[in-house]
Amino acid sequence: MTRIAIIGAGRIGQVHARAVLAHPQAELALVCDPFEANARSLAEAHGVAWCLDAAEVFASDDVDAVIIGSPTRFHVDHILAAVAAGKKVLCEKPVALELSEAERCLRELGENTDVMMGFNRRFDPTFSEIHHRVADGEIGDVQQLIVVSRDPAAPPAEYVAGSGGIFKDMTIHDFDMVRFFLGDIVEVVAIGTNVDEAIAAQGDFDQVIVTLKSAEGRMATIINSRTCSFGYDQRLEAFGSEGTLSADNLTATAVRKASGNQTEAKSRVMDFFLDRYVDAYRLELDAFLTAVADGSPMSPSVRDGYEALRLADAATISAHEGRIVSL
Amino acid sequence: MTRIAIIGAGRIGQVHARAVLAHPQAELALVCDPFEANARSLAEAHGVAWCLDAAEVFASDDVDAVIIGSPTRFHVDHILAAVAAGKKVLCEKPVALELSEAERCLRELGENTDVMMGFNRRFDPTFSEIHHRVADGEIGDVQQLIVVSRDPAAPPAEYVAGSGGIFKDMTIHDFDMVRFFLGDIVEVVAIGTNVDEAIAAQGDFDQVIVTLKSAEGRMATIINSRTCSFGYDQRLEAFGSEGTLSADNLTATAVRKASGNQTEAKSRVMDFFLDRYVDAYRLELDAFLTAVADGSPMSPSVRDGYEALRLADAATISAHEGRIVSL
Amino acid sequence: MTRIAIIGAGRIGQVHARAVLAHPQAELALVCDPFEANARSLAEAHGVAWCLDAAEVFASDDVDAVIIGSPTRFHVDHILAAVAAGKKVLCEKPVALELSEAERCLRELGENTDVMMGFNRRFDPTFSEIHHRVADGEIGDVQQLIVVSRDPAAPPAEYVAGSGGIFKDMTIHDFDMVRFFLGDIVEVVAIGTNVDEAIAAQGDFDQVIVTLKSAEGRMATIINSRTCSFGYDQRLEAFGSEGTLSADNLTATAVRKASGNQTEAKSRVMDFFLDRYVDAYRLELDAFLTAVADGSPMSPSVRDGYEALRLADAATISAHEGRIVSL
Amino acid sequence: MTRIAIIGAGRIGQVHARAVLAHPQAELALVCDPFEANARSLAEAHGVAWCLDAAEVFASDDVDAVIIGSPTRFHVDHILAAVAAGKKVLCEKPVALELSEAERCLRELGENTDVMMGFNRRFDPTFSEIHHRVADGEIGDVQQLIVVSRDPAAPPAEYVAGSGGIFKDMTIHDFDMVRFFLGDIVEVVAIGTNVDEAIAAQGDFDQVIVTLKSAEGRMATIINSRTCSFGYDQRLEAFGSEGTLSADNLTATAVRKASGNQTEAKSRVMDFFLDRYVDAYRLELDAFLTAVADGSPMSPSVRDGYEALRLADAATISAHEGRIVSL
Repeated sequence: MTRIAIIGAGRIGQVHARAVLAHPQAELALVCDPFEANARSLAEAHGVAWCLDAAEVFASDDVDAVIIGSPTRFHVDHILAAVAAGKKVLCEKPVALELSEAERCLRELGENTDVMMGFNRRFDPTFSEIHHRVADGEIGDVQQLIVVSRDPAAPPAEYVAGSGGIFKDMTIHDFDMVRFFLGDIVEVVAIGTNVDEAIAAQGDFDQVIVTLKSAEGRMATIINSRTCSFGYDQRLEAFGSEGTLSADNLTATAVRKASGNQTEAKSRVMDFFLDRYVDAYRLELDAFLTAVADGSPMSPSVRDGYEALRLADAATISAHEGRIVSL
Repeated sequence: MTRIAIIGAGRIGQVHARAVLAHPQAELALVCDPFEANARSLAEAHGVAWCLDAAEVFASDDVDAVIIGSPTRFHVDHILAAVAAGKKVLCEKPVALELSEAERCLRELGENTDVMMGFNRRFDPTFSEIHHRVADGEIGDVQQLIVVSRDPAAPPAEYVAGSGGIFKDMTIHDFDMVRFFLGDIVEVVAIGTNVDEAIAAQGDFDQVIVTLKSAEGRMATIINSRTCSFGYDQRLEAFGSEGTLSADNLTATAVRKASGNQTEAKSRVMDFFLDRYVDAYRLELDAFLTAVADGSPMSPSVRDGYEALRLADAATISAHEGRIVSL
Repeated sequence: MTRIAIIGAGRIGQVHARAVLAHPQAELALVCDPFEANARSLAEAHGVAWCLDAAEVFASDDVDAVIIGSPTRFHVDHILAAVAAGKKVLCEKPVALELSEAERCLRELGENTDVMMGFNRRFDPTFSEIHHRVADGEIGDVQQLIVVSRDPAAPPAEYVAGSGGIFKDMTIHDFDMVRFFLGDIVEVVAIGTNVDEAIAAQGDFDQVIVTLKSAEGRMATIINSRTCSFGYDQRLEAFGSEGTLSADNLTATAVRKASGNQTEAKSRVMDFFLDRYVDAYRLELDAFLTAVADGSPMSPSVRDGYEALRLADAATISAHEGRIVSL
Repeated sequence: MTRIAIIGAGRIGQVHARAVLAHPQAELALVCDPFEANARSLAEAHGVAWCLDAAEVFASDDVDAVIIGSPTRFHVDHILAAVAAGKKVLCEKPVALELSEAERCLRELGENTDVMMGFNRRFDPTFSEIHHRVADGEIGDVQQLIVVSRDPAAPPAEYVAGSGGIFKDMTIHDFDMVRFFLGDIVEVVAIGTNVDEAIAAQGDFDQVIVTLKSAEGRMATIINSRTCSFGYDQRLEAFGSEGTLSADNLTATAVRKASGNQTEAKSRVMDFFLDRYVDAYRLELDAFLTAVADGSPMSPSVRDGYEALRLADAATISAHEGRIVSL
């Protein structure tokens, strides 16, 4: 039984809390949030202890592992303090908003492999099945990767303002997915546009297309939009020398309809990330707990977090300066 | 080059005329219809000769083969006269409305194999591919067959009146399809209902479900409706010991749509039998011409026509008398 | 919080136990099974009390509701005793193996509506969505219902021997589904065959097709097989005057593959009933708890259980005597 | 009846000849090819006249319209000579290999609108249906366009050598498709790689991804590969503010298969461009003949051909120089 503390009792912290409570090898031991109302309400809902100061988490003997869901600017400090205290760590993405901060994290961690980055989509059953089948050689060499990732609705302008921009906030997941399939990237080019004026007013894009070339000469394209009328559009195609594996969108049921002017119409695409990725969060926690139990190196690692952030940085430069960026 | 005469210049005769005109090994030589306007208009559209009396067709030295699209009550006489004159014959289904008439045809034909019955669906590329793959053993033994066959709209009441009833007029195609996959049938049970009052008023059904057991102990179910709101519903599932092969409906294009409350909605199912089966008519003619050229036995044969009619008769008895009929 | 006892700690009892433990409004209070090993192991896994005699369950003040998963021959006695003790009841299907026993249950229950029958498929999200949309009038009047229900593999011969035959054991679910959509049935005809010699040797069928006509003149066909090479085949089509709603099979993921000789190939159909219907069991329990809380009449009711059994009886007679059975 | 001459009796000339012969409003009047064997064999197959010198075509009084399928380096001269002789013209893509040559064509044509460029994919029923529905406002504003275009197998190295490179030879169709949906383009960036060493040896790419931004601020991505293991991969997605319309690949039949480890597997994607686009060539000719009959301006026009070539040029520069190109 791994005793887990959650730092950050906001939306994502609650997601992790539910996964922890449902997992037979995990125990929710402590909830930490500087806002007492947050900490107290999540903790009391499940009858566990709470605190306001993360230092208490790291100092606690009743905590084996920490899930970090605090604001991004605290991630590196929390990671390093947790590791220093001998805790295992699962940290939400991105590892930092500034690349230099991510570099500091990597440098100070050195050989330590006790930190897992929360790229939950790697654990989504559909994407994960594709990855396994690719690894088994079922479609030969992967030559092209297409990632379509569109959110149902744009976040509030104030959230966007503090998000570090679309590449660090949204595309970061897709950058990790590209690396998951194609390995390290040497070339990035991004083009952005706006259909949302509030986002445009902040100097950020709400639609981007990013093209990447890998060290092994393979290519990927990422298509993002902050809004999507038909739900949470999350698809992927891995094109290989001997076949293609692709991920359809998920729907809540398997109902289809034929009527006057159409046929095979399926029920609406899931439109909330928690519904869409509920299994991914569960399986991510499961992989984390397995690594805790085994003492094996965590994956995805802080280096994976750093590399995704580097791609986000490169894409930001590319889109704003109008040039291809080599890495 | 096979010189072809068409007897019956109505809708189905016109379908065959177009197929003949488009086929490189066929030549439309003569059009025959007792209604001069019909004969003349079809013939003149293509610059060929016409006549009113079928006897002229059989007597003509310029005709190698005859396509019979006359009213069903003339089929047997036309078949026998054509064969007597040494012509090859492609005859529309059903071979007759009365089983005794079909028996007479079989008896008088004896060993002659120059007559092909127009069960065009056997030549539909989709159904035909399933049949070939089944024959290749791809799904092991076929154990169950499901045939869904629904027309977009009911025919006029006067047509229904002279049609011999739904089993002889509509289900006849499905009976042949069941025999195509499962061979001879030993048990038939049919249940019928009405949603169309005009058809009910004539003592006919407009929706039927027929269950059949084959001599080899395999089962089939046929689901028919005279009306279907979403088009011409023509599907089939062959369930085998090692897999299932099924036929989706055809659509005019491969467009799909995702929108507010649905996804993967495909364009409307084709709703006119000539659009749906245009390839089937073409390939049926092609098979006929190949058999003419080879002198090989025609298939489907008059016996196939007779057996389908026997099933229609059995189903009619079953549905009207409320009992299972053994053959 | 509803305190629940489970009678019968076998496979289905364990399914219900997991659903109870995961439900926020339910509490597992007691486990009962005459085999001590069964009772003890399920109870101790969750730290609850256990007993060997169902009478203790009914007598307990710590039990509000009972889930009956005992062998079918005990169902009616357990239902009646539980109700007499003022408990709410969720009982597995079928209500009994003998119609007379089901009639006794109905008679003795009288006006009592505290018993829900475990026709879990009514609560499957896909089937349930179709039912809701039909009820909303989305496809007009339902005119035809096609239910395809095939198990991945036949049960052991000894299980089949005590099962009451395929119609009471397997088709019973489909009979309830037909009644769920079409209401009461007035005509049944069933044809059966065998591909499994062990089942044939017991005088039971392993493949059946059943056709039914409803009191309102609508028709249904049920296609069953005890074996299915591609998984647990659970589909349904509700054909209405203004459209068709159908249920695809469920797959574990949304992966598709295109390769040398095929395209759009989806991952294997789920092949275990607990995976396929895990949501159905959860939502069934939820509906039960809602009715417990509200004091509203349970649905599906014992009458629904009785009517499904009546159809199973009629189908058994039909298939064995070779005749259509009117009800 | 429009009397048509075909210049260039190679593969594409034969495609057009078949379309002309099958069209009721067209007549094949003359075949021209400098290689006598080519000219003679196509002409004699259909019993029409032939010549070796294009000048004879332009001078003929028996020719109303010319279809130009000669090598690309002759396109502009043939277009201008035909127009000077008062003929209507349907010219294969690309209009030229050099942009300056295409500019000359535009300049010399001036106000003349009698020339249609052979961007056949605009007439493909699936793509064309999407275009119509977009034009009808069915999905609001088109914001993103994804074009996947992969050939089943790479052409011979000698063909590639004279093709002008992948962007002018293959992507040219996709550039036109992007303009068809998004209008004029202001920014292009292309990245290329190789999986085919023979093509790499010629300094050309065999896989490219191109991203484009339109004058109206909308984006497109084109994914190309010279090889594709599963057939001729031709898909498109138009993502709009109120929905998405997408084009599936076409298959020869509507057969699906479920078996041990997969379900819904559809028959192989069509793998030959003539099968895939047979309807497009037919409908392209039909549109051409309609414009001939009406005297209306041809579309797609030479300007469309010029713009597509400009994009191909820009993409070539972008991929080889590693920079974004503004237009």
